[in-house]
Amino acid sequence: MTKDNTDTPVTVVGLGAMGKALAAAFLKAGHPTTVWNRTAGKADDLVANGAVQAATVEDAITASPLVVVCLLDYPTLHKVLGGAATTLTGRTLVNLTNGTPGQARETATWAAGTGADYLDGGIMAVPPMIGQPGSLVLYSGPRPAFDQHSGALGSLGSAQHVGTDPGLASLYDLALLTAMYGQFAGVSHALAMVGPEHAEALTALLPSWLIATAPLSATAGDDDDSPSDMQAVAIANITAASTEQGVHPDLLRHLLIPLRDLLGARAAGQELDALIDQVRTG
Amino acid sequence: MTKDNTDTPVTVVGLGAMGKALAAAFLKAGHPTTVWNRTAGKADDLVANGAVQAATVEDAITASPLVVVCLLDYPTLHKVLGGAATTLTGRTLVNLTNGTPGQARETATWAAGTGADYLDGGIMAVPPMIGQPGSLVLYSGPRPAFDQHSGALGSLGSAQHVGTDPGLASLYDLALLTAMYGQFAGVSHALAMVGPEHAEALTALLPSWLIATAPLSATAGDDDDSPSDMQAVAIANITAASTEQGVHPDLLRHLLIPLRDLLGARAAGQELDALIDQVRTG
Repeated sequence: MTKDNTDTPVTVVGLGAMGKALAAAFLKAGHPTTVWNRTAGKADDLVANGAVQAATVEDAITASPLVVVCLLDYPTLHKVLGGAATTLTGRTLVNLTNGTPGQARETATWAAGTGADYLDGGIMAVPPMIGQPGSLVLYSGPRPAFDQHSGALGSLGSAQHVGTDPGLASLYDLALLTAMYGQFAGVSHALAMVGPEHAEALTALLPSWLIATAPLSATAGDDDDSPSDMQAVAIANITAASTEQGVHPDLLRHLLIPLRDLLGARAAGQELDALIDQVRTG
Repeated sequence: MTKDNTDTPVTVVGLGAMGKALAAAFLKAGHPTTVWNRTAGKADDLVANGAVQAATVEDAITASPLVVVCLLDYPTLHKVLGGAATTLTGRTLVNLTNGTPGQARETATWAAGTGADYLDGGIMAVPPMIGQPGSLVLYSGPRPAFDQHSGALGSLGSAQHVGTDPGLASLYDLALLTAMYGQFAGVSHALAMVGPEHAEALTALLPSWLIATAPLSATAGDDDDSPSDMQAVAIANITAASTEQGVHPDLLRHLLIPLRDLLGARAAGQELDALIDQVRTG
């Protein structure tokens, strides 16, 4: 097998907002692109830009050695591909449907039965970012399949292989989303603390602050310059200020429990635990 | 009153790690700098670099029109300055001690009684960052006092006035710390999800990811490219993946409750609420 070049045909199954963005990026990179969607009208813009619309999912799969699937969820995937299993033999199936590591592993086992190479992917971008700088897509599964198609997959954004276990792309995807939601949760509490009157001013300060602190987040507790007793003082002040501002201290559980686990595993002593117990029972 | 130039004498009271960094930055900027600490030995390095060590806190205060205080906490501040109140008359007292907005407002009232101008500050940096690019210090209190001393205060880092209410610098400081702790909590959960085997690989991906998502955090829920139903799917997958990985779903409370509040106030429908209720009672 040789590596992809821009002549490599690509098929995209599923034309939601993300599937359409994927197909458009393959087209833009010059790949002959075949598309299929249960509702045919979704393909009109892509066809106008040079895509071939297949009449059936079997026709779509047989058009290309590289088949990229992006559907609503895994039950939909198995419904769509279940009847077309024999057409997958010898092809590479790249599944970018949102799901869990367990679903990815089950689908990898199913795909192995069809004779397809299976890569599972996690898209760390929203549709308008696909094919643009900053777009990152994680892949897991057999390394040779990834290496063969990394050229075509690079049309979507930075393509990063995170391991052979097919569940890893989903696991890393969900872990990164969790970190993002932690960021959102912290901002939510911060905005509640300052109240509507100061939300705009705080929002102006937040991005550069969070960008400055992002690199610290994975090493919090290691830092001699911000020892755990100073962090305990900061948390006590946040608790007091939240109460002063009429924000229920129970909201702080979402910060303090994981922070205790984080610091506790690294550098914290009894003071922080005692503080957290006080907040939890208060 | 004219604005500070580098001839303006500055006094620093309190020589913990942060106080020492503040005094060193004033010295480096060329300000005649007087220091005082309850334990005299802390001043040795600063004196070697040109600082004058005052014998009493009263001597320290009378040496400069600008008096910067950075002590352990507010009770310590009142113990140290309480007997020296009359020496503060006509000077500007800048209080960089960690505390709450309420403590800042009480201290502003006390300072008004001494005839001092009072600015309260929040330092958004650790000691090694003071005077370096990226160091940010927030101030609140009377604008003319800030404008007069913004030159000297700029020696410490970017000096930003956030309002005349003396509690605002502390409030913004604690809100920004809260947002940072949310980031840390999300990373903590993310690392728990992937487990020790994958912690290093995830840690390599996290900073650039969190830097990319930081600007989105204050507008989460507004984004048409990532509608709330897709976010609900992501949260359901995070819940399932956490359970698969042996991470207790209760940990997700710290993410989901504030996220519900955030999205609920903006764009979310019943699906997300139902999901969260399921997690909370599950």
